Amino acid sequence: MYYIGIDVGGTNLKAGLVDESGAILVTERTPLGAFTGPEAFAGTLADLAKAVLHTAGKEKEEIAYVGMGIPGAVAGGEILYTCNIPMKDVPLSGLFRRHLDLPVLLENDANCAAVGEWVCGAGRGTKDFAVITLGTGVGGGFVLNGKLYSGGGMVGEVGHMVVEKGGVKCNCGRRGCWETYASATGLIRMTKETMDAHPESLLHKIAAENGGVEGRTAFQAAEAGDETAKAVCRTYVEYLAAGVTNLVNILQPEVLAVGGGVAAASDELLMNPLREIVNGECYPRHAGKLPRIVRAELGNDAGIIGAALLGRAI
Amino acid sequence: MYYIGIDVGGTNLKAGLVDESGAILVTERTPLGAFTGPEAFAGTLADLAKAVLHTAGKEKEEIAYVGMGIPGAVAGGEILYTCNIPMKDVPLSGLFRRHLDLPVLLENDANCAAVGEWVCGAGRGTKDFAVITLGTGVGGGFVLNGKLYSGGGMVGEVGHMVVEKGGVKCNCGRRGCWETYASATGLIRMTKETMDAHPESLLHKIAAENGGVEGRTAFQAAEAGDETAKAVCRTYVEYLAAGVTNLVNILQPEVLAVGGGVAAASDELLMNPLREIVNGECYPRHAGKLPRIVRAELGNDAGIIGAALLGRAI
Repeated sequence: MYYIGIDVGGTNLKAGLVDESGAILVTERTPLGAFTGPEAFAGTLADLAKAVLHTAGKEKEEIAYVGMGIPGAVAGGEILYTCNIPMKDVPLSGLFRRHLDLPVLLENDANCAAVGEWVCGAGRGTKDFAVITLGTGVGGGFVLNGKLYSGGGMVGEVGHMVVEKGGVKCNCGRRGCWETYASATGLIRMTKETMDAHPESLLHKIAAENGGVEGRTAFQAAEAGDETAKAVCRTYVEYLAAGVTNLVNILQPEVLAVGGGVAAASDELLMNPLREIVNGECYPRHAGKLPRIVRAELGNDAGIIGAALLGRAI
Repeated sequence: MYYIGIDVGGTNLKAGLVDESGAILVTERTPLGAFTGPEAFAGTLADLAKAVLHTAGKEKEEIAYVGMGIPGAVAGGEILYTCNIPMKDVPLSGLFRRHLDLPVLLENDANCAAVGEWVCGAGRGTKDFAVITLGTGVGGGFVLNGKLYSGGGMVGEVGHMVVEKGGVKCNCGRRGCWETYASATGLIRMTKETMDAHPESLLHKIAAENGGVEGRTAFQAAEAGDETAKAVCRTYVEYLAAGVTNLVNILQPEVLAVGGGVAAASDELLMNPLREIVNGECYPRHAGKLPRIVRAELGNDAGIIGAALLGRAI
């Protein structure tokens, strides 16, 4: 059998035909466009799935189900709430099947990425697996006891774990949330604050060359030997490690994978110091049980692959 | 069938005969005594289980298994590591069966308490449940997707989640761990610090009457109207709520139960402000999904009941 995985992003809808091994055979994409209601949205998703079938030369009968990763909360085939698309309590599975009669599995998009990494990426072969994604925010997903853990549909908001009570104000309403430090957004804020205090730093030149401060700016300047940038990277890794160690102490995954743009930084500046802090502080070290802290492997494909292979983890 | 549950504490071993409903029919206890090795320890446990059988007038054949809650890490019928008893990599199940040939289920003691509350206490009927225990430290246990979540045996060290980076030094080696604030020990520290700064506070009189500062001292003085004590209680609840909200954001349990000595404080001073902060800050509020924050119900019996009913959750 084959599977169709759809990754519903804030600007694009991406779909792929995926085989049993997790390989993506064909992909199609379409802009999300203006949102005109759940019925039209379900029709757009069905058209995308049909385009995948057509391109791949497959029949509906060769497809086990359509898996969808939704940027929001889902439960029981319904969208409870989406962050960037105005939907609330939408029975998307039923609406989709009016256009294309295939079983539908819905999940949160970060959970789909976790399933993708678990089935054929960094989490292969584990019983308990966590993935965190360092992007605009910090997202997370868990496979626990060999099953996707999705709680009541709003699970994995690891970015909104306070690590510094009374700290930086977060959009969620709390102060000191992990993602205000450990996201790319947090890294950019720290980089800018440091640049204000250090006009001599190479950070200014690198930012100017790239048209502004980015998540990678501090890592690039540090690679070039800038001591101020090295200090920014060190502070960033310390905050990243604080939340990772918290997750290890709470859930003790065998493997914790780090994905998202920031994870592209070098071993020397990111992964090695991260492992060193976590291994030196995490509670399971008392029983000689260190987690493996690795990079996520599937990049942007994790969402499509995980949506397509949801059936393996639920 | 009946079940024997054994709760291995730091000073006493307690065992009970438990029926299908979770009721404890008889109990026996014996001091842990001087530890002379795993073989003797297994013999003591077997003697205790035999005493339960004798007192209850039951035969071995009426017992489904013996469940044991161990203060440490366990996996696959072995003790990996215990905190207060010098055992490491001890095949306790096998040693026990030399004395009493019944199946043995081993688990961490906090996990047993979570199972007890889940089967017949505060977590009845839930799919995803968390319990935290506010005592000398802060312990935790989770039932997720209807199964005890025990990770690699060192799971649930929720007390060692940093909520204030760079904060109070913790025995675990980190700084700012939740339990340095939210445990009874943390509350006592905060109370003493406040007393030093407020010689006029009623806290001094109440502490003197009770022979020293206890976890309940601040709550007692606050009940009597002392404003300084009310501020201590408020600060304590804010730290408690920070960690509870973190857990809610990470795992979204339907119910989170609070147990341990501190949980005996009044609704007005403890549970109500705790709920107010968590409900106002937790991420699932965006989807109208508030957790139920309740008191644990089984008290000191949770360990025996949970050990006895482990088979329901694994």
